[in-house]
Amino acid sequence: MAKKTTKKKTTKKPTAKSQPAASKKKIVRKKRNAADTGARLVDMANSVADQISREMDPGVHIPTRALSNVNFDKKSGLIVMGSNAQRRSFFNVGMAKKFMQTTLVAAGCKQLIDQKKTTSIRDLFYHTKHTIPGTKENTFDEQSESDPIIEDLEVAMASLREELGLFAEPKGAMVGPMVIEDNGDTIDLSKMGSGGWAIPSIVEDHIIKFKRGGAKFVLLIEKGAVWRRFSEDRFWEKHKCMIIHGGGQPPRGVRRLMWRMHQELKLPVYVLVDNDPWGYYIYSVVKQGSINLAFESQRMAIPAARFIGMSAYDAAKFDIPKAVSINLTEQDKRRAKEVAAYPWFASKPWQREIRQMLKLGVKLELEALSNKDFSFITEQYLPQKLKDKQWLD
Amino acid sequence: MAKKTTKKKTTKKPTAKSQPAASKKKIVRKKRNAADTGARLVDMANSVADQISREMDPGVHIPTRALSNVNFDKKSGLIVMGSNAQRRSFFNVGMAKKFMQTTLVAAGCKQLIDQKKTTSIRDLFYHTKHTIPGTKENTFDEQSESDPIIEDLEVAMASLREELGLFAEPKGAMVGPMVIEDNGDTIDLSKMGSGGWAIPSIVEDHIIKFKRGGAKFVLLIEKGAVWRRFSEDRFWEKHKCMIIHGGGQPPRGVRRLMWRMHQELKLPVYVLVDNDPWGYYIYSVVKQGSINLAFESQRMAIPAARFIGMSAYDAAKFDIPKAVSINLTEQDKRRAKEVAAYPWFASKPWQREIRQMLKLGVKLELEALSNKDFSFITEQYLPQKLKDKQWLD
Repeated sequence: MAKKTTKKKTTKKPTAKSQPAASKKKIVRKKRNAADTGARLVDMANSVADQISREMDPGVHIPTRALSNVNFDKKSGLIVMGSNAQRRSFFNVGMAKKFMQTTLVAAGCKQLIDQKKTTSIRDLFYHTKHTIPGTKENTFDEQSESDPIIEDLEVAMASLREELGLFAEPKGAMVGPMVIEDNGDTIDLSKMGSGGWAIPSIVEDHIIKFKRGGAKFVLLIEKGAVWRRFSEDRFWEKHKCMIIHGGGQPPRGVRRLMWRMHQELKLPVYVLVDNDPWGYYIYSVVKQGSINLAFESQRMAIPAARFIGMSAYDAAKFDIPKAVSINLTEQDKRRAKEVAAYPWFASKPWQREIRQMLKLGVKLELEALSNKDFSFITEQYLPQKLKDKQWLD
Repeated sequence: MAKKTTKKKTTKKPTAKSQPAASKKKIVRKKRNAADTGARLVDMANSVADQISREMDPGVHIPTRALSNVNFDKKSGLIVMGSNAQRRSFFNVGMAKKFMQTTLVAAGCKQLIDQKKTTSIRDLFYHTKHTIPGTKENTFDEQSESDPIIEDLEVAMASLREELGLFAEPKGAMVGPMVIEDNGDTIDLSKMGSGGWAIPSIVEDHIIKFKRGGAKFVLLIEKGAVWRRFSEDRFWEKHKCMIIHGGGQPPRGVRRLMWRMHQELKLPVYVLVDNDPWGYYIYSVVKQGSINLAFESQRMAIPAARFIGMSAYDAAKFDIPKAVSINLTEQDKRRAKEVAAYPWFASKPWQREIRQMLKLGVKLELEALSNKDFSFITEQYLPQKLKDKQWLD
């Protein structure tokens, strides 16, 4: 446990107040929708057909999705893709199958867009899977073959998969002072009872529209069970905020919705996670994007998102008994060191934060605060952190 | 793949029509609520205090939660607990710690009930965890110690954990023609946009009230992504039903809510799962309850629930290509045989169903139907199954 002397507000950043709610870097937002994506798919198909009619080896250009083509752009604070691309062509034994799969997935997505339907990536796998006539060869054997093709198409079309009509298993919920329109239905998110509004996977502005609202900020809570405490205690009412959770690592729908609230409504975003390396990582993905899906950063990541807790200094500051902390495993320690080496955690306050966790040798879950009182987290812990501006950027 | 001759409606049960929507066995429902549970907790505490004042070895009676104390009641169609119980007392080295833990958890639950709050079982673990003064001994080390104590208390108090103020991680969503009241908010479940209403973990009638509705049945869909197809295609509107999913094995809130709709609104319940042994198992838990939590069957299980699909006969019947089926693993085969041996799957149609899966040697996911068309499942498959009454009881 930290000594009493660490109780001074080491994580306080008095300059934070002067920061604008939204990211300083204005991201150029192009108005795009599913119809545009459909048009780009047709362009790709026409290009392939054209190559065939000119008796060329037909192929498509796919930007390279590899660590070698990813870098951290300090100016925007985003993990972004480089410009490397590869030509995927038919008359190349190493590529022929992938080329065929790419055109199949593209055709499936075009069909979805034309039918104005959406579906899961698993559904699309089955939709495009068949045995090639006269052979025993399947177009796809496993979904693990079609998923990367979808990501290839996303980058090639410069479209989110949601614009291709594809969604992931929905996860997460939100409540707060806001009225939205969801698929034509008007929904008052302050009157959602105990369950909240289930966040769909596709939250683009042709489906979800922000109508009215009185929220001053967005609070992302790592876990559904802790979110429920905030909902039951009506934290959102007292503190005028949207409370949202993504059931652990927030899924794309939750990230994209937060991004939209941040960009369009200029709401600051605070992230409340367990004090463990996984919590830092969740925050990091919300803030800078992920390495695997770097091409989405511009439309998902929120560089101005703030880490409100739990900090490794909180146990001492809030007098949390030692019995409820958990020793770091070897894997935790390794992970913490990895996180500390990310260029976007290079700032002094972040290095101090991670060093403190390693020094204490323990992690702390949000639920541990219940040791003080069931509502300690909503009535004392978070209000004080917000009041004292004890967050990390 | 099944031969064409198996296309006759082997799963059709013409007599099913004559069955009432709700279970034939009238389950005696006692009106109980959290306050009653609080009173029973006080009774338990008084009894312990009384034993101490009379210088007896203080203890509590805990019904035995073991396979040896579980049986299948053919009459009610439920997996039920027997009457064995054990005295857990303080002056018994093998029981002292568990006795202490039982009283701690009981005190935590009483506190929750008094504060009119609810919390997660993880939260309660942290709430009751502390180092015993003057020792290095913790009241609990892991949540795996407090969870069984909660189940002990549930059976000892004859209360669901939800009545003890405890909830699980919420999962699942519902839409359909029904207006409910959730924690005082009126919610129209036919106007929930694309996301649906997130089903809370605690759905007891002091929190969730059914107000108005036009639904004729309840359809449980195994997966969120498939549920979304039904939601997007507005299946619930055309077929006047509630569509609900629990993200795989439905959590307690979803099961309890279906039970309430079945019992209170007399709605028949249909279960739509993947055609694999896990799907049979999910259906089985909805219908008879689970072996682990047999004491909850009376308030969770729906003996009249119907298995609408997918059946091992459906691939042939609906002409689903072989390429989208998946070979059964050895574990699948073992599991299928286990399921076939359950007394509640002893009926001829069920034995035939499971034999057919083993004979074909393949399983089929709901998403496989997308191979025909994205909306094949909502526009052709399920409407035909319902029309032809092709379900199993």
